[in-house]
Amino acid sequence: MKSTLIIGAGGVGRVVTHKCAQLPETFGKITLASRTKSKCDCIAAEIDYPIDTVAIDADDVAATVALLNQIKPDILINVALPYQDLTLMEACLEAGVDYLDTANYEPKDDPRFSYEYQWPYHHRFVDAGLTALLGSGFDPGVTNVFCAYAQKHFFDEIHTVDIIDANAGDHGLPFATNFNPEINIREITAKGRYWQEGEWKETEPLEIHQAFDFPHPEVGTKDIYLLYHEEMESLCKNLNGVTRLRFWMTFSKNYINHLTVLQNVGMTSIEPVDFQGQQIAPLEFLKSVLPDPASLGPLTKGKTCIGCVIDGVKDGKRLQKYIYNVCDHQEAYAETQSQAISYTTGVPAMIGAKMILDGHWKKPGVNNMEQNDPDPFMEALNQYGLPWEVVDGAPFLEQLQKHNP
Amino acid sequence: MKSTLIIGAGGVGRVVTHKCAQLPETFGKITLASRTKSKCDCIAAEIDYPIDTVAIDADDVAATVALLNQIKPDILINVALPYQDLTLMEACLEAGVDYLDTANYEPKDDPRFSYEYQWPYHHRFVDAGLTALLGSGFDPGVTNVFCAYAQKHFFDEIHTVDIIDANAGDHGLPFATNFNPEINIREITAKGRYWQEGEWKETEPLEIHQAFDFPHPEVGTKDIYLLYHEEMESLCKNLNGVTRLRFWMTFSKNYINHLTVLQNVGMTSIEPVDFQGQQIAPLEFLKSVLPDPASLGPLTKGKTCIGCVIDGVKDGKRLQKYIYNVCDHQEAYAETQSQAISYTTGVPAMIGAKMILDGHWKKPGVNNMEQNDPDPFMEALNQYGLPWEVVDGAPFLEQLQKHNP
Repeated sequence: MKSTLIIGAGGVGRVVTHKCAQLPETFGKITLASRTKSKCDCIAAEIDYPIDTVAIDADDVAATVALLNQIKPDILINVALPYQDLTLMEACLEAGVDYLDTANYEPKDDPRFSYEYQWPYHHRFVDAGLTALLGSGFDPGVTNVFCAYAQKHFFDEIHTVDIIDANAGDHGLPFATNFNPEINIREITAKGRYWQEGEWKETEPLEIHQAFDFPHPEVGTKDIYLLYHEEMESLCKNLNGVTRLRFWMTFSKNYINHLTVLQNVGMTSIEPVDFQGQQIAPLEFLKSVLPDPASLGPLTKGKTCIGCVIDGVKDGKRLQKYIYNVCDHQEAYAETQSQAISYTTGVPAMIGAKMILDGHWKKPGVNNMEQNDPDPFMEALNQYGLPWEVVDGAPFLEQLQKHNP
Repeated sequence: MKSTLIIGAGGVGRVVTHKCAQLPETFGKITLASRTKSKCDCIAAEIDYPIDTVAIDADDVAATVALLNQIKPDILINVALPYQDLTLMEACLEAGVDYLDTANYEPKDDPRFSYEYQWPYHHRFVDAGLTALLGSGFDPGVTNVFCAYAQKHFFDEIHTVDIIDANAGDHGLPFATNFNPEINIREITAKGRYWQEGEWKETEPLEIHQAFDFPHPEVGTKDIYLLYHEEMESLCKNLNGVTRLRFWMTFSKNYINHLTVLQNVGMTSIEPVDFQGQQIAPLEFLKSVLPDPASLGPLTKGKTCIGCVIDGVKDGKRLQKYIYNVCDHQEAYAETQSQAISYTTGVPAMIGAKMILDGHWKKPGVNNMEQNDPDPFMEALNQYGLPWEVVDGAPFLEQLQKHNP
């Protein structure tokens, strides 16, 4: 029987565990590990399938190797914090276990969303005959697979890709961040960046934005903001001939306003201030007053819509495609007790692991999503909760070009 | 030679000390006391007149009595926090010293801007032959004197008074509170209240607001918000026949927005939250990230405009008067190293003390400003830095009635 180790018991870990437990023939014996075992126990108790739970310090390579040697999993699904990617990759190499994650490694003191720390492991994974699949969430993850699928089936050449991530959910609270507030706030207070004609172009934070009319009526028209996002780093290498890559995310004016004010007053800073003789980072304190993102699950209504508007050429003719998924917060919650933000990341993590376990994507080395055959993954998305649509991309590219030609 | 004790070395204490030092024949030997002696020394060093400085815990009646017995002042000017009013009044009674303050007593756990704690001292001050003058700042303070002056010179009957407090200053920072952020935020997140036909009417916080075109071109048109303010409590008793009293303060949309967001996320709450095992009140933490109000002094440009729009009857004919002062932040700073917010409070405190020392307002008991002859005070305002104007109030009352009849 197969054996699967999931490390991380946050919202995404919850979804991965729920989804893996739905496919016992693929994942076999499931172990869920986290720094805090009680969080694993809480998730295990929601699921009508035996889940082993264990405490692990994922920063500790030796302890992780010992755990891997003990439970001998066929794959380690890393949905812990991105700070632990390297120690877990080291442990997998030492114990001879395939590896998967959903977000690139970040040193705590140098957050910059880059694969430069993980790609150098490629030869070691090749030599060990082990597969490491990077970024198997939705974005990065499914968005990369959408590009690979488009390249395989719709285009001879891809010229531009606009990845657009909409959360049209509403939790009814005046302000809350969707996931870890620290990472969420850091992401959108950073400078924007996009890929054009072979180089990175930098923008001020949230400088480029426009209204965008989404293909799903329940998503409607939302403001989208150009951000840097990590999948562009691999796509600009792996999509032959691509001349422009951009990433957009929706934020409401209310959200931006709250964030701007919190920045203005200094509450988003990680520089400690003196508080009654103690050094406290304002952002750390802010986290303690903001709603716990996990508490938003039962409150959130509405849908997400994430996908790629792709412009290119087929048989000498220019054409556009928009490939996207729409996910419903309440349906996601009913199935996995997590709303769509965690669901859209956790389901592709499960599917990526399934691709490796089934042999489709078993390919020694460190691989990004688009370096694999997209077809079985795309089929699995339809089957396991994230069905996708392909529509004519022309009117959507036109919207983007109207404001930002 | 006279002797004066000033307690409190914040922005207002600085102004009072500067201004008293300009009138040595009135104030004689000046002692400045505060919990932190170094703050007193810092102010004393700015002034070319000998200022004695001393540390005092104004919560400690015995210590304050000992200090009063030692320096034997003719008056105690209390510009410490309003939490200390009662202990300082007790000390004055025991040591036989006249008393003056600028803001009513508040218990720390029951802030409600009321004279109910201080008025009961009236008979004890009468019996001791001592004068206690309450609320000798600008508002309360000068605004009460404006009403008394209007009653004495312009009206047989006053029907309505609208007190309007504009700060059209700009410190160039995205957000800062003008004085102690805790008191500032608490003031404007509280419910509004106004006096009408013999009773208090309550409003939601900042519920009633409108644009108002001020008489001074550099103040211009500003949004004014109806608040409760303490001078209405005495004016509704002492202005015979008044049927409506309202208080308005300007806030920019930017200021209100920042405050709303900080409230939304819980940062203005005084209820402690758990932060890494410690109980910390978010508002206390917020104070540690906001600019120190004292640091705004050198940055602030523009003017304040505070005054009263009064409607009434004289010789059977209805008429309106608008009495106001315009104060310039930079001029105030040049003279006293404090901007106009502290200046407009500190100068009337000095003048109130002068009124008692000169004998004009020496009147045993606990008195509010409007219970004294306004004429010498009004003359002193013109003389010592807060000149006032009287104009036809009709167009200003009309503005107020257009939006809030």
